Amino acid sequence: MADLVESKPLSGFQDVLPEDALRFEQAVNDLKTVFRRYGYAPIDAPCIYRYETLTGGKAGIDKQLFEWTKGDEGAHVALRFDLTVPLARYVAANFPKLTFPFKRYDVGKVWRGERPQKGRFREFYQCDFDVVGTTARTSDLEVALVMQDALAALGVERFEVRINDRAILNGLLGSLEIQDKSEEVLRVVDKLDKIGEPAVKDELAGPLGIGPERAEKVLSFTRLSREKEGDALLAALEERFTGNELAMKGVDRLRFVVKGAQRLRPPERTKIDLSIARGLGYYTGTVYETVLLDAPEFGSVCSGGRYDDLASYYTKNRLPGVGASVGLSRLLAAQQKLKPQQASAAPCPVLVIVAPEVDPFEGTRVASLLRDGGIGAELYPGDEGSKMAKQFKYGDARGFTFAVIVAPDELSRNAVKLKDMRSQQQTDLPIADLVSGIKARV
Amino acid sequence: MADLVESKPLSGFQDVLPEDALRFEQAVNDLKTVFRRYGYAPIDAPCIYRYETLTGGKAGIDKQLFEWTKGDEGAHVALRFDLTVPLARYVAANFPKLTFPFKRYDVGKVWRGERPQKGRFREFYQCDFDVVGTTARTSDLEVALVMQDALAALGVERFEVRINDRAILNGLLGSLEIQDKSEEVLRVVDKLDKIGEPAVKDELAGPLGIGPERAEKVLSFTRLSREKEGDALLAALEERFTGNELAMKGVDRLRFVVKGAQRLRPPERTKIDLSIARGLGYYTGTVYETVLLDAPEFGSVCSGGRYDDLASYYTKNRLPGVGASVGLSRLLAAQQKLKPQQASAAPCPVLVIVAPEVDPFEGTRVASLLRDGGIGAELYPGDEGSKMAKQFKYGDARGFTFAVIVAPDELSRNAVKLKDMRSQQQTDLPIADLVSGIKARV
Repeated sequence: MADLVESKPLSGFQDVLPEDALRFEQAVNDLKTVFRRYGYAPIDAPCIYRYETLTGGKAGIDKQLFEWTKGDEGAHVALRFDLTVPLARYVAANFPKLTFPFKRYDVGKVWRGERPQKGRFREFYQCDFDVVGTTARTSDLEVALVMQDALAALGVERFEVRINDRAILNGLLGSLEIQDKSEEVLRVVDKLDKIGEPAVKDELAGPLGIGPERAEKVLSFTRLSREKEGDALLAALEERFTGNELAMKGVDRLRFVVKGAQRLRPPERTKIDLSIARGLGYYTGTVYETVLLDAPEFGSVCSGGRYDDLASYYTKNRLPGVGASVGLSRLLAAQQKLKPQQASAAPCPVLVIVAPEVDPFEGTRVASLLRDGGIGAELYPGDEGSKMAKQFKYGDARGFTFAVIVAPDELSRNAVKLKDMRSQQQTDLPIADLVSGIKARV
Repeated sequence: MADLVESKPLSGFQDVLPEDALRFEQAVNDLKTVFRRYGYAPIDAPCIYRYETLTGGKAGIDKQLFEWTKGDEGAHVALRFDLTVPLARYVAANFPKLTFPFKRYDVGKVWRGERPQKGRFREFYQCDFDVVGTTARTSDLEVALVMQDALAALGVERFEVRINDRAILNGLLGSLEIQDKSEEVLRVVDKLDKIGEPAVKDELAGPLGIGPERAEKVLSFTRLSREKEGDALLAALEERFTGNELAMKGVDRLRFVVKGAQRLRPPERTKIDLSIARGLGYYTGTVYETVLLDAPEFGSVCSGGRYDDLASYYTKNRLPGVGASVGLSRLLAAQQKLKPQQASAAPCPVLVIVAPEVDPFEGTRVASLLRDGGIGAELYPGDEGSKMAKQFKYGDARGFTFAVIVAPDELSRNAVKLKDMRSQQQTDLPIADLVSGIKARV
């Protein structure tokens, strides 16, 4: 016999066990149900593209690409590394066939050739929703609502959506005539929590070269959201930016989104946070982050924002939009930490067990009866004539709620035994009452 | 401005439009619900593997592989080309953590570098379910039931599951002492429909070299299922193979599966068909094919079989099992031909339209009220102040069932207009009665 072939996944790739895959699938279903409830539709698009299609204009990212040259055709191709670039490409490629504004969700795998490290995978899921082709503030508000409904659908209760509007900072930087340095300024300001205000101020004034006066103006702006909140903060922003058209547009949109979300959902779940920047050049309006109040160490579990133009690399059609990404893996990891699952759960509640001396077809018949009655039921799948103890052991390992036992005595009376696997209690049930009997006990 | 980047998919890859993606997603959900009802659980496993892991022992297939060498680590890797090899690998790699018999389903993309041609893609979905680690005939029967429930869940009514058992033919070939030529014999016999009996007999007797006598015995066997059917066929098989242990095991299992399926489901949907071979070395017991009676040109839309040992390349644990594959793309293409969808359907029934002069938040509020009441509702996502005609045009293009119109007059009376988009009828509804009013009309 030949040597065995290696079966383990590559480093950075993972096998997901059935219990976890079931939980993940349920979570994805719940999220998709929320998205559809708001009118978002799914799309499906390839995982592999021309190298240039994925990298077009985006420098830097290509280091992480899984890319290769197809021998027979010499085409340089790569696997998608996110769902945003493929969305931009999709919208451009299918422009005449789509209805705009275009609302889509997409849940799928992406690949990045990062050095493997704990909790980081080279193949992982992203879960995005976007509305493309609109500047309406109601769309920004909707994204904040979808984020909240998505987390609620996953059973998360204590969270906070933190919202900012990049137009305010952009308006400020414009008035200071340093809008061309916005990315650098943001990168430094982002370090506030880590290195503190004096160090940030030094870096802004010195290495970045905007001088101490403008550095102080930038910092006094970021200080606003620490000193004030809610209506008082909005009033302060309005006072400070009167006459600054871009910043005022941001303040107005921020008010609309935050007040709207607070009116329609538990108000404590939405906060203004002027320190949120979310990436660099891409976002231009509302930006969102979501923190789990009981597990803030997981970082933002749902983030997004408004952009001016989604697909400028691929089409001359200007496509402003807004969307967000649900960090499903992070969320499930956090949930596992907060509410560890007690036991594995089977995909259906009932296991049908057949005594070795009974005609095996009787088991199939009883299981079929349950399924036809709307109750998921698995027939013990092991070899015919398996001992009862072995069948029960299987049932325990899989986490069924009930066992239905088909044994000769009961069967001769057209009955079966029903065992509650949690309480271990057993009762006899006529086969004719099996479906109603189990439904009454669920 | 830089030149635009190419946005079209590569040849052999496809962009799926929202209406089709929504239909596909619904079909996948329906199938998974059937699988779970029988106790199958999902798994999730990587798309990329070591080249040797995917090809281990399987010659020939590698021509179709998407494979490359990762520059930085020199690892030769490839994308999965089906879900069966990855299942074998998964079971071997996670053996101690799994409960056996192991029942799993998997729906995911696979890649093959075939020459693109009509209806053939290089990236496509497979949808498999298997039970691994059992020889029970009830598992073979279950697969036949799942196949029927799966098609029924997709709304297919007129179909036929055709079943054979490879052990019968293997037993016959054994008794003729040509079991070492079983693959070649099968390959020739498979041509019966195409080239006819005399040509097949010539090829068996001559080029294959089993002589005219044994060729006649093989052919008289294949003739059986043309001349007899049902109980008469089973009786004839029993008579012919008395004393042939392997063949009789096949006859017994075939009877169990076919009779069981006919008792539990519409009997005309299950047929014995001794001409079904399903691939070459892999299957050793029950084999299944499914034909749409109104669209037989699509071929088998759901196929599978029993194997002796799933993962012999990866583990010394012997793993017999049985499973099948649902040909989702074929099925959806066939359905599209049989029952073309009239119009595109939105992912939720209601579009909320807001008159340009109304506070945009009112639209969000009404849509939110509907959603909280359990009715999916999209707020027109276009720019604020859009004309009503533009909003209705969007609603028509998306295929909503109802439009809820938020206009100043009605709003001043705490009411909205409800328009049935099919009948074009309009009525006024108090906002307080909106949810119940729409539910009554669905």
